Amino acid sequence: MKFITMAIVNQTVGIKTSVYTSQQTIFTIYVLSGLTILAAFLYALYLTSWVKAQPNKNPTIKHIATLIRSGADAFMKKEYRILASFSSIFAILILIFLPNPIWISDNISENIIMAIVYLLGTLFSAIAGKIGIYVASLANARTAEAATSGIRPAFRIAFRGGAVMGLLVVGSCLLGVMGVMILIGDATVLLSFSFGASSLALFAKAGGGIFTKTADISADLVGKVELNIPEDDPRNPAVIADNVGDNVGDVAGMGADLFDSNVASMSAALVMATMLDGGTGANVMMVFCYAAFGLLASIVGISTAKVGEDDNPTKALNSSTYVTTGIFLILTALATYIFPGFQWRIWGASTAGLLVGVIIGLVTNYFTDGDYPIIKKVAHASKAGPAFTILSGISYSFISVLPSMAGIAVSSLIAYTLCEPLGSGYGMYGISMAAVGMLSIVGMIISNDAYGPIVDNARGLAEMGALGIETIRNADELDSAGNTVKAITKGFAIGAAGLTVISLLGAFKSEVNEALILMGNTEEILTGFNIMDPKVFFGILVGGAIPAVFSAMLILGVEKNAERMIDEIHRQFNEIEGLRDGLAGVEPDYNKCIDIATTGALKELIPAGLMTIVATVLVGLIGGVHAVGGFLLGNIVTGLLLALFMSNAGGLWDNAKKYIEAGNEGGIGSEEHKAAVIGDTVGDPFKDTAGPSINTQITVVSLVASLMAKIFLIFSIF
Amino acid sequence: MKFITMAIVNQTVGIKTSVYTSQQTIFTIYVLSGLTILAAFLYALYLTSWVKAQPNKNPTIKHIATLIRSGADAFMKKEYRILASFSSIFAILILIFLPNPIWISDNISENIIMAIVYLLGTLFSAIAGKIGIYVASLANARTAEAATSGIRPAFRIAFRGGAVMGLLVVGSCLLGVMGVMILIGDATVLLSFSFGASSLALFAKAGGGIFTKTADISADLVGKVELNIPEDDPRNPAVIADNVGDNVGDVAGMGADLFDSNVASMSAALVMATMLDGGTGANVMMVFCYAAFGLLASIVGISTAKVGEDDNPTKALNSSTYVTTGIFLILTALATYIFPGFQWRIWGASTAGLLVGVIIGLVTNYFTDGDYPIIKKVAHASKAGPAFTILSGISYSFISVLPSMAGIAVSSLIAYTLCEPLGSGYGMYGISMAAVGMLSIVGMIISNDAYGPIVDNARGLAEMGALGIETIRNADELDSAGNTVKAITKGFAIGAAGLTVISLLGAFKSEVNEALILMGNTEEILTGFNIMDPKVFFGILVGGAIPAVFSAMLILGVEKNAERMIDEIHRQFNEIEGLRDGLAGVEPDYNKCIDIATTGALKELIPAGLMTIVATVLVGLIGGVHAVGGFLLGNIVTGLLLALFMSNAGGLWDNAKKYIEAGNEGGIGSEEHKAAVIGDTVGDPFKDTAGPSINTQITVVSLVASLMAKIFLIFSIF
Repeated sequence: MKFITMAIVNQTVGIKTSVYTSQQTIFTIYVLSGLTILAAFLYALYLTSWVKAQPNKNPTIKHIATLIRSGADAFMKKEYRILASFSSIFAILILIFLPNPIWISDNISENIIMAIVYLLGTLFSAIAGKIGIYVASLANARTAEAATSGIRPAFRIAFRGGAVMGLLVVGSCLLGVMGVMILIGDATVLLSFSFGASSLALFAKAGGGIFTKTADISADLVGKVELNIPEDDPRNPAVIADNVGDNVGDVAGMGADLFDSNVASMSAALVMATMLDGGTGANVMMVFCYAAFGLLASIVGISTAKVGEDDNPTKALNSSTYVTTGIFLILTALATYIFPGFQWRIWGASTAGLLVGVIIGLVTNYFTDGDYPIIKKVAHASKAGPAFTILSGISYSFISVLPSMAGIAVSSLIAYTLCEPLGSGYGMYGISMAAVGMLSIVGMIISNDAYGPIVDNARGLAEMGALGIETIRNADELDSAGNTVKAITKGFAIGAAGLTVISLLGAFKSEVNEALILMGNTEEILTGFNIMDPKVFFGILVGGAIPAVFSAMLILGVEKNAERMIDEIHRQFNEIEGLRDGLAGVEPDYNKCIDIATTGALKELIPAGLMTIVATVLVGLIGGVHAVGGFLLGNIVTGLLLALFMSNAGGLWDNAKKYIEAGNEGGIGSEEHKAAVIGDTVGDPFKDTAGPSINTQITVVSLVASLMAKIFLIFSIF
Repeated sequence: MKFITMAIVNQTVGIKTSVYTSQQTIFTIYVLSGLTILAAFLYALYLTSWVKAQPNKNPTIKHIATLIRSGADAFMKKEYRILASFSSIFAILILIFLPNPIWISDNISENIIMAIVYLLGTLFSAIAGKIGIYVASLANARTAEAATSGIRPAFRIAFRGGAVMGLLVVGSCLLGVMGVMILIGDATVLLSFSFGASSLALFAKAGGGIFTKTADISADLVGKVELNIPEDDPRNPAVIADNVGDNVGDVAGMGADLFDSNVASMSAALVMATMLDGGTGANVMMVFCYAAFGLLASIVGISTAKVGEDDNPTKALNSSTYVTTGIFLILTALATYIFPGFQWRIWGASTAGLLVGVIIGLVTNYFTDGDYPIIKKVAHASKAGPAFTILSGISYSFISVLPSMAGIAVSSLIAYTLCEPLGSGYGMYGISMAAVGMLSIVGMIISNDAYGPIVDNARGLAEMGALGIETIRNADELDSAGNTVKAITKGFAIGAAGLTVISLLGAFKSEVNEALILMGNTEEILTGFNIMDPKVFFGILVGGAIPAVFSAMLILGVEKNAERMIDEIHRQFNEIEGLRDGLAGVEPDYNKCIDIATTGALKELIPAGLMTIVATVLVGLIGGVHAVGGFLLGNIVTGLLLALFMSNAGGLWDNAKKYIEAGNEGGIGSEEHKAAVIGDTVGDPFKDTAGPSINTQITVVSLVASLMAKIFLIFSIF
């Protein structure tokens, strides 16, 4: 179906058709991609068994690690159960309405395929998340034990444990997208796959985010503030939930988020590439080739990660990221040189995306790392009390959004300008390839990111298992590297999402135009969305408010949930005899806390998720496709602003607190420290719940819009 | 010049020309407006002498009131001096570059007129502010004395004192705009007048905002927190600066802000009306007629303001606002019925604007008034510590932006849809008339708003003059009414600014098109700004970051300045013997604190103001007019979001603190109260410095863009 309409589109809007590529090239690239996926899966399998084979003998640690694993399992099980019912409802809605309402469709099998592909999108992401969590919970205990003999062996285990997640996410993403394209051959169906991935990401990231901060804040407030017991004291009923939270929020959540961004960026690029090629041509193959080479580069990068003689884990993480970036650039340049129809201008766009990603990461680092002046200024401001910690933190984070937003703006301008001369439609395709470029090294990024919660857990296990000061210090060193790298990867993830949603805006326009052509309404073909059109403007203003409301609902969710958990912790300390004094054999009811965090997280998440979807549908039904175009733009602008602001503010307060704890501005216990702790608590749901969930929120909204484009054309009021 | 080009524009873009209005109608409306202005000035004069005639005998109060007055004078003098050099530079730049660079202009007198009109814009606003401050500082002492005999007489003085500012601002705004139109007859020159008003507003609002919060926060931190002395204790060296701050921030600042919005909305409407009319026609006269009737309605409303038997000042303020609204609607309906060429659809647009203004006010009230659940929830959240006060306050304020932004979106959609059938160009004109409608009752709004700092000062004077508990209680009652009404007027001001900047975006497009026609480049005539145009998108993202950076710079300015002042307060308490113990005859050096606040405020403000102007110019020179269109949109979206968020958050925290102080959730001195005080301190620069300054920032940027449209067309890189 698509191919015929493409020809019409191309004739109508004047696009050069048929960027010809030989069957041999297509075959070569598919085989190449297939082999890379296979390599990634095999390497992941090898790393898993390697991690499993590492020593894990300490019984206390074994016991606690089991508690963490079963807690994570309990959350994932419940999450996936709710997600299953949620997805079923959505699958049925897709079946009824998409791509055409079933009562006016002449080909119901299209609807069935859409629904199935949607479910596959959720499934692929879910499986990758599940295995990632499993390996991470094997790696944490082994990392803790290895930390007794030094930083280098411990780093190796933690990093390889995290890398499994990175390899699986990117491998299954590529597999899914390629499968859909080969078997169904319709890029629009990919949007349904992408929507499946986003639905899961919404649950995994926002749900996991509420879980992790509920546990973290409650454990700290009762443990550290009220009772004055250490961070990971096993008497605290919330301590296991806190460690579980690191896994479900940072491993599964971040993985699903980047799976989602990766699928979305590829889908958007492929929707535009098929339109340009009029089917499978050089542009389509370029997307696959670049994505496959990104994965290959990540495999090489991962295999080189190693702490040197200087015992500096941050350097190890960064240098393997640079290795990956370099290899990717060389491989794609080679491919562009070799394969017929591959354009250097598009390579340039992809390179611009990747380099801007690196720059955004460095800027984020400047604003959130203790080595630079910003953190010191915020710590110093805390002298005048917590209000000043908050005010200066908010201010510097507001300033920090400018370079990143300007970076995204400039990279999209460069990508567009570079590719525009290739023909009509190539400008937007160039932007989508910048997003693909930025996300190409995502396998490496996820590996770095999943390393964080593993070493964080390991630090907790070292404390709870009483492995001694030296081990804890090693674990601390590894943990601090995780935090530094995390800030960079977060900036990267938001930048990539920014470029992706721009290309999704392009995909939305393509979908609308395709529908218009099918409806025989070619004179209304969109060339874009005019700001001065009052419907577009209406959409922009309403869309601009949505990320704020969404964030607010998540943060209030954390608050409400923490209130419940604090009550439970108090109850246990009051009712379980001997718990407060740490009598031998007395253990708190960890599961109750995990249960509260789980139930509450999912309960608080659903209204926020539904709100965004309902708002999109309402705006579309009121103002039609023009209003929705504006709505997406409004969402992108304030979404990027708030995501960057919140992530950076959270990172900044966290590190300001750590800076004071390192003995500056009065050190631990001073009034400055108390102020910094308040800042850190405010920052926690900013950086781990609301901030990173906004990405997913924007992606979900963009996909809902693209999928429902035809419905809005038929049913809108204005 | 304009008239000839208009004809070309109208031919080119297909606008119906010559909405004919008889010379008699034009004469009638000008005379009517002139008489209304005269009435406003005479009434202001009467109220001033009436306030002056009220008893003012208590020597202590007289002395302190003099200190406040001379402090305010000192600030205004310094502010106006810096402003004068700033304005001179701008006037010279305008002379050189606008409307055409002097070296390619064939009529230099146009440039001279532009520069002079710009200076007049600053001058008119400055004079209104100066007189407003003068009367307010007469009224505060008299209000305090009248409060000894009850709420009703005290209310009368305070309200009438504030009304002088309201009448002068609106009267001089109308006088200036009408003068320019009658004498020069070119609506583009009005933008220069408007830019003058905005420059002043930027200084008055942002500078005053930094001043007032520097003094407020420093006085509180040392006085209430460190030394545990009451709010308005005369021993505190910052106490006079604090009272001065109320005047310069809330009287002069808010007045200049609304003068600016009012001029900007009229200018935008007139630019579009002259284009539609091809000169002075029915649409132009409609703008003047509606504005004059707004002022007339405000005069009537002001004269009815009176506290009833129930001693409820809030009711008195609100009911006279409703009277003004009602009279305005009736008068404009009559005018639309009587005058030929006046359209009912445009009356509808103006009414939609006014009503949405009222709705936004009510929503703001819901989120910031202690009678509704939100405040109670935030107060309750404070139980878990200050981090939760902050988190819940931020969350609810994020949610509060949705109804206001949707309200602005809906009113502009209604206005556009109503007026579009009248012909091409009428849609945008309808939106600008919605802004004029919303701002029509601004005379009343300013009166309500200036009432606030007068009673706030009066409360301070009652305390410092030891007028007894009963008097302080009366003053408190009056003050609390001021706070409630303030929240509503603030929502109103932001809403009006929102609609105004939308119409300024329309004015920008008109200016670009006019320039294109003059340059003979008619095929590039803009129909709008396409989101999918990468230059527009580039502008949107960069523009979206600017309000955040601007706010951050102002807030950091308050912080830095407060640090300086706190040092000074400490110095005085340490060095002036007997001050701490309140020995008779020992007085702190109030002027030193006023001086710090003044110098610092102006020093911190200038970089922030320049940053926004430089960013606009840079974006224009890089990406041309398309990028600037996007830049303005980005500014509007995130500017509205942040302005609403910050104003509401500040109001909410302030009232949550008051709610706890009224004995709820533990009352004064409890941990909850301490948390709420921290929230209030964070909220202070939000609501009184950054939030309300964003309006002005957006207006300045929009006007710079419109004025420089031609330069961007000629000199841009892309």
